[in-house]
Amino acid sequence: MSNKIEPRILKGFRDFLPSKEIERKRIIGILEKNFESFGYVPIDTPVLEYTEVLLGKGGGETDKQVYRFEDNGGRDVSMRFDLTVPFARYMAKNRNDLHLPFKRYHINKVWRGENTQRGRYREFMQCDFDIVGIDTASADFEILMMMHDSMKAIDVNDITIHFSHRGIFNRLLDRLEILSSSVDILRIVDKLGKIGEEEVMALLKELTTESNAKEILDFIKPAGSDEESLAKMERAAGGTSDDTERLKTIFGYIKECGMEDSFKLDPSITRGLDYYTGIVYETFLDELPGIGSVCSGGRYNNLASLYTKEELPGVGAAIGLDRLLAALEELGRVSEKQSVTDLLILALDEKLYGHYHNLSRQFRKADINCEVFHTKKKLNAQFKYAEAKSIPFALICGEDEFSSRTVNIKDLDKRENWNGLTVDEAIAKLSENKR
Amino acid sequence: MSNKIEPRILKGFRDFLPSKEIERKRIIGILEKNFESFGYVPIDTPVLEYTEVLLGKGGGETDKQVYRFEDNGGRDVSMRFDLTVPFARYMAKNRNDLHLPFKRYHINKVWRGENTQRGRYREFMQCDFDIVGIDTASADFEILMMMHDSMKAIDVNDITIHFSHRGIFNRLLDRLEILSSSVDILRIVDKLGKIGEEEVMALLKELTTESNAKEILDFIKPAGSDEESLAKMERAAGGTSDDTERLKTIFGYIKECGMEDSFKLDPSITRGLDYYTGIVYETFLDELPGIGSVCSGGRYNNLASLYTKEELPGVGAAIGLDRLLAALEELGRVSEKQSVTDLLILALDEKLYGHYHNLSRQFRKADINCEVFHTKKKLNAQFKYAEAKSIPFALICGEDEFSSRTVNIKDLDKRENWNGLTVDEAIAKLSENKR
Repeated sequence: MSNKIEPRILKGFRDFLPSKEIERKRIIGILEKNFESFGYVPIDTPVLEYTEVLLGKGGGETDKQVYRFEDNGGRDVSMRFDLTVPFARYMAKNRNDLHLPFKRYHINKVWRGENTQRGRYREFMQCDFDIVGIDTASADFEILMMMHDSMKAIDVNDITIHFSHRGIFNRLLDRLEILSSSVDILRIVDKLGKIGEEEVMALLKELTTESNAKEILDFIKPAGSDEESLAKMERAAGGTSDDTERLKTIFGYIKECGMEDSFKLDPSITRGLDYYTGIVYETFLDELPGIGSVCSGGRYNNLASLYTKEELPGVGAAIGLDRLLAALEELGRVSEKQSVTDLLILALDEKLYGHYHNLSRQFRKADINCEVFHTKKKLNAQFKYAEAKSIPFALICGEDEFSSRTVNIKDLDKRENWNGLTVDEAIAKLSENKR
Repeated sequence: MSNKIEPRILKGFRDFLPSKEIERKRIIGILEKNFESFGYVPIDTPVLEYTEVLLGKGGGETDKQVYRFEDNGGRDVSMRFDLTVPFARYMAKNRNDLHLPFKRYHINKVWRGENTQRGRYREFMQCDFDIVGIDTASADFEILMMMHDSMKAIDVNDITIHFSHRGIFNRLLDRLEILSSSVDILRIVDKLGKIGEEEVMALLKELTTESNAKEILDFIKPAGSDEESLAKMERAAGGTSDDTERLKTIFGYIKECGMEDSFKLDPSITRGLDYYTGIVYETFLDELPGIGSVCSGGRYNNLASLYTKEELPGVGAAIGLDRLLAALEELGRVSEKQSVTDLLILALDEKLYGHYHNLSRQFRKADINCEVFHTKKKLNAQFKYAEAKSIPFALICGEDEFSSRTVNIKDLDKRENWNGLTVDEAIAKLSENKR
């Protein structure tokens, strides 16, 4: 008879074992450094908010997915389901303490009670970066460059960022006198990649005339070159406008920075959400386009309209970290390191533990991650521990070495030994050979 | 008339503005690096767990503080209120994938619906590190050394780690034949610092005889030196034992590593929680002892007994990050940086934006955090932005500099100018003068 509790976890939630968490933190660390190199600053917001603040006074399609409850003080609260709504609330609340344009990044967990059968998680990471309080081509381009450089920074080199401009699409709908159906049309167009042209055509015809449907379908098909696509879009939208000029300016920056190989003007990119007003984009891995966009976003003209009359235009993107990590895993691009320890000090003599610990500090001070084996077990068990933790080097110090103030270092992979080193010599050897 | 929603946040929850979040992340980064230098690996667990898993089948004093609710699937779930219980569940669940001894750290948020009037937060950070699956003096000492070195790493040098041994205290209670009241006695003794000797004596006398109360009070008072304290404890506990030997061994390591100035044997440290069985400790800032312990913990002999029959002895500590940050703020020891940007490229000429962005990439590649000012505003407004973001340097490049392929750099604090530099020269100057 056992009255133990089963250590189970909730469906859609995950434990992260060390190798996965090390890799996730490594990637997040690189992204953070990259965002900061562009002048973006980190912020944090509460996981729990008033439900009204997150969902507004009405309630949309996401509501059913939200973790919502009454707290012990009788308040109607919810766990955040994205990082955009809390950011809008944050801008409105802290407006007087923030200088515009404000550039922030936020990498943290969000929760949605989604159907887990589609391989989705109920707890997952979002990674957002936005610049708010400005509406220029330079700001639009900065976000594109950050997306591009972020992927390169984590060694994802073969990407294509598909981009377009929502404003130009809206001008087409306006010309066709169907702008009022734009939300429904956007939702259909956004499915092009999944359901194909024929199905999109059929769905559009339910909403508008066949001739309009054809014009829309023609609009979203890329032409041979980006220049041709742009010219075609311009014609369809009724000629030159601020929106087409904006797109041309951004194009110019892309070329001047030599990044044109990673970008493609793709009029089928419209993004389903209706708050986008300008440039919109999605990022695909050339080796794994099927997994979908790993970094998407666009320009919006009014971030915090739910909370304040002040107009806060902005532009931003979000990296789908879980999808990106899954892709890297599929491409065999993730490290399976069980630790980041460089050196294990073996326990040869119980009396020498003080010395072992003293040695360990000297290595750590020289930036060599070092641990001491804490029980005097057989050497085999100690080597097995090193293997389990992917530790590449061992330090051996018995009574003889202690007397002569030396140590022996063993390269556990290459099975080489360097014997009779002083601590300084050992540090130099290890620093040279660190992996 | 306005139908805007008030952008308020819940009581006990906080937004983190950039300067605070930059500092928090800086400190966390240093701690993580330090933990990893000792071979500790990061893990992660879900924020939501089955209530039964977190609270057990019964329910204790913490229950009222837990954020507990029924999810949309009718499950009884709770938000984690600490990182210890999820860690125990994690060890039991993933036991086969983990090699013992297992060393992990976990820095993340937990939630408790505490009374906010006492200046407590309902959402706060915990920072735990533990080594599990081993019971030796070397492991005990490692945690002490990590506490010590963690504080030094974040430049908190004047600390005293007060430590004692729960086993020795229990031996005293056993000798006095009042071991069965140990939980209540521990709770009283733990209050010594707050309520004073007299009050402790009064409370103890309610539980046991005056002579016992006197012996306990005498036991918990430190003697002149650590050696005298140890001798006194040993006598009170009925002589030498494994526990006193363990304490002496740890003492030896502390001395051999030259850390004795930061340690003090303090028999009044017992920790309120009843799962501790061996060494226990609390850390005080010499400059601000009044704020209480910033890092505490101890040895326990059975981490995951709620979920598994396997005994998992361990030793660990937790840094009270929020308290520590508050203390550093009080000591004027936190940076108020609004960003980590090194260089702002000023917008002098609309036509040069492509060039500005191209320049920015070259600086970033040389590890200089660099941003472009995105609108052609008056220079005054641009300098004001640099000031608001604590950016120390500006780059000036107009048509003349563009033609001659040079740039001018301005040190905004010292009001010095370096003119007519090539990009490489500018990079060298900035790398030298970075702050």
